[in-house]
Amino acid sequence: MDGERGTLREVTLEDIRPIGIGAGILGTGGGGNPYLGGLHLASVIREKGPQAIIDPFDLADEALCCVIGSIGAPTVSIEKLPEGTEMMRAIRLLEAHIGRRFDAIAIAEIGGANSMQPLIGGLQAGIPTVDSDSMGRAFPEIQMSSFLFDTSATAAPLAMVDAADNAAVVPAAVSDVWAEKIARNIAVSMGARAGLAGTIMTGAQVKSAGVHYTLSLARGLGARVIEAQAQKSDVPPVVAAALDGQVIFRGKIADVERRTTKGFARGGIRLDSFNNCDRLEIEFQNEFLIGRLNGETVATTPDLICIVTEEEGEPVTTEALRYGTRVAVVTAPAPPQLKSEAALQVVGPVAFGYNAPFRPLPGGVIGLRPVLG
Amino acid sequence: MDGERGTLREVTLEDIRPIGIGAGILGTGGGGNPYLGGLHLASVIREKGPQAIIDPFDLADEALCCVIGSIGAPTVSIEKLPEGTEMMRAIRLLEAHIGRRFDAIAIAEIGGANSMQPLIGGLQAGIPTVDSDSMGRAFPEIQMSSFLFDTSATAAPLAMVDAADNAAVVPAAVSDVWAEKIARNIAVSMGARAGLAGTIMTGAQVKSAGVHYTLSLARGLGARVIEAQAQKSDVPPVVAAALDGQVIFRGKIADVERRTTKGFARGGIRLDSFNNCDRLEIEFQNEFLIGRLNGETVATTPDLICIVTEEEGEPVTTEALRYGTRVAVVTAPAPPQLKSEAALQVVGPVAFGYNAPFRPLPGGVIGLRPVLG
Repeated sequence: MDGERGTLREVTLEDIRPIGIGAGILGTGGGGNPYLGGLHLASVIREKGPQAIIDPFDLADEALCCVIGSIGAPTVSIEKLPEGTEMMRAIRLLEAHIGRRFDAIAIAEIGGANSMQPLIGGLQAGIPTVDSDSMGRAFPEIQMSSFLFDTSATAAPLAMVDAADNAAVVPAAVSDVWAEKIARNIAVSMGARAGLAGTIMTGAQVKSAGVHYTLSLARGLGARVIEAQAQKSDVPPVVAAALDGQVIFRGKIADVERRTTKGFARGGIRLDSFNNCDRLEIEFQNEFLIGRLNGETVATTPDLICIVTEEEGEPVTTEALRYGTRVAVVTAPAPPQLKSEAALQVVGPVAFGYNAPFRPLPGGVIGLRPVLG
Repeated sequence: MDGERGTLREVTLEDIRPIGIGAGILGTGGGGNPYLGGLHLASVIREKGPQAIIDPFDLADEALCCVIGSIGAPTVSIEKLPEGTEMMRAIRLLEAHIGRRFDAIAIAEIGGANSMQPLIGGLQAGIPTVDSDSMGRAFPEIQMSSFLFDTSATAAPLAMVDAADNAAVVPAAVSDVWAEKIARNIAVSMGARAGLAGTIMTGAQVKSAGVHYTLSLARGLGARVIEAQAQKSDVPPVVAAALDGQVIFRGKIADVERRTTKGFARGGIRLDSFNNCDRLEIEFQNEFLIGRLNGETVATTPDLICIVTEEEGEPVTTEALRYGTRVAVVTAPAPPQLKSEAALQVVGPVAFGYNAPFRPLPGGVIGLRPVLG
């Protein structure tokens, strides 16, 4: 990070809109609806005040941390609204299970509403949120976490609650993939939407394995978008520049194929360029995972495929894909933590069943410098 | 019970075969394969000696009890063998969750291998087994338990483990039906076979709500079958007499339609009489639930529909249904605990989606007198 640090010391009402935009873009389609997440966060901040943000490198090595977030299908999150205290209840349930209190909440994924759940839950539980996540984007499955790639941390024990009084704890699992399988089926029985706390770590593990300052990144990215909107600039190139990426396509959503199945939103979309000469196809499982331009693969997970509205540069998430929407597609290199050999086995194209190698986009430090600078 | 008590004080190697036959019949097709359960129980008794059986009325009112059993699809239980300590691990996990030790293990369902799991788990955990279950038969879902109909007991908290190191706890659920939904999906992720401990009760609740002496009943029924086999008697009428029921059909299995889906073995069978004049159709969800003779409904859940081999009177469970097998079908009245208005809403035909009223068979005390006398 070249000594750069995050810009956030707390999250106030004013930060919600830029974080929502930035995390909506970083979420590559997933993480849940950032607008709804923002409304929820605003109501909690109005009641309790700003949420404290900890710089990961200010964590004590022995601090006890976990991640929290929503698990389920983003398509469900706009229909089945939360009760509101899911995140705090998941934290408390996990604390009760292990018999210890958490010192800080790390962010599971910076994408969409899941950038805000650790703020909401932390604020409700009286625990600060770390300015680090485990993806620098969003991914659909629990094991797809840099906190799990090279550390001794495990996804289980984990705790889950729903909008009613249903709860579940997974005290142990054979592997993180098994923890995901069990948690996913629990989420399905909870209506494909549940609050989850898990991946218990020390502060030292957060420091060594996290993708740092991504909450600051989200806010900075969102602020640039808002600024460009105010200046009537062409926004998508601003998004691309902030992420060390590029605008690879502009056009209209011509087809959306979507199915909410097995606790995920799966499907694909087809985009036609405005002159109808080019076609971009994107497949998703909660998140956009692979892009093919006129049949040729041009972007592969874990690199970021972000869809924004063509004029405003606002994020278009999985559940908001609509026929006819005018969009721009930005691709950007994933953070280096996701591109090690071990990481690619978990988050590369093959892990999602695509018979394609990972073709890294140029670059790799997730645009921190331009956004934070 | 007219002062009658169970006959079992302990379960030894010699009891396994009669219990397996009796529980296989009482299981109305479900509860898991009694032969495989018997092999498992025998290996544990050889190592640890007989398992102690408690008369329910010898339980202290404040004794802490739970039920244990396998959850999943019987069709899976003959392919995916257990690791062997699932029941004990489920007990220990639930004990760890609540921070207390159990004084006795009640039987969730007397059917099939699930008659033996509380003996296996109790023996391994050093806890006696109560001579009471909650069904007097087997049922596919957790909420279908007399321990839950009219008491303050709830299915959750419950604990589940699989043959590997996966585990899950459901600390709370909105209702027993929700506990079932969540536990079922966990069972699916555990390969449609898991060990479960739950339905925490006091001794007073076991006494007031249990279907008592059904382990003794299973052994007595099995002993009668073995005796009749030795005497070359016609066995199916002996089974019927022991259960206050009747033989309603003899014939061959002409068709089996079976699908293992959503954690259950579902399907239906068609039986043709030996003279091909009559046809009996039976539908099942783990257990045989409804029988139609030449199109007319003749037996409905919760009454017992038991299939035994035509010559030996041995139980034919869901997973053992085979084209061409010569069988007799015995129906018998369910115990009164299953026939209250509240109970029928949970275990009657409508609860399983059949558009049919419950038509009770005559009788009602589940044949205890002839078997125990």
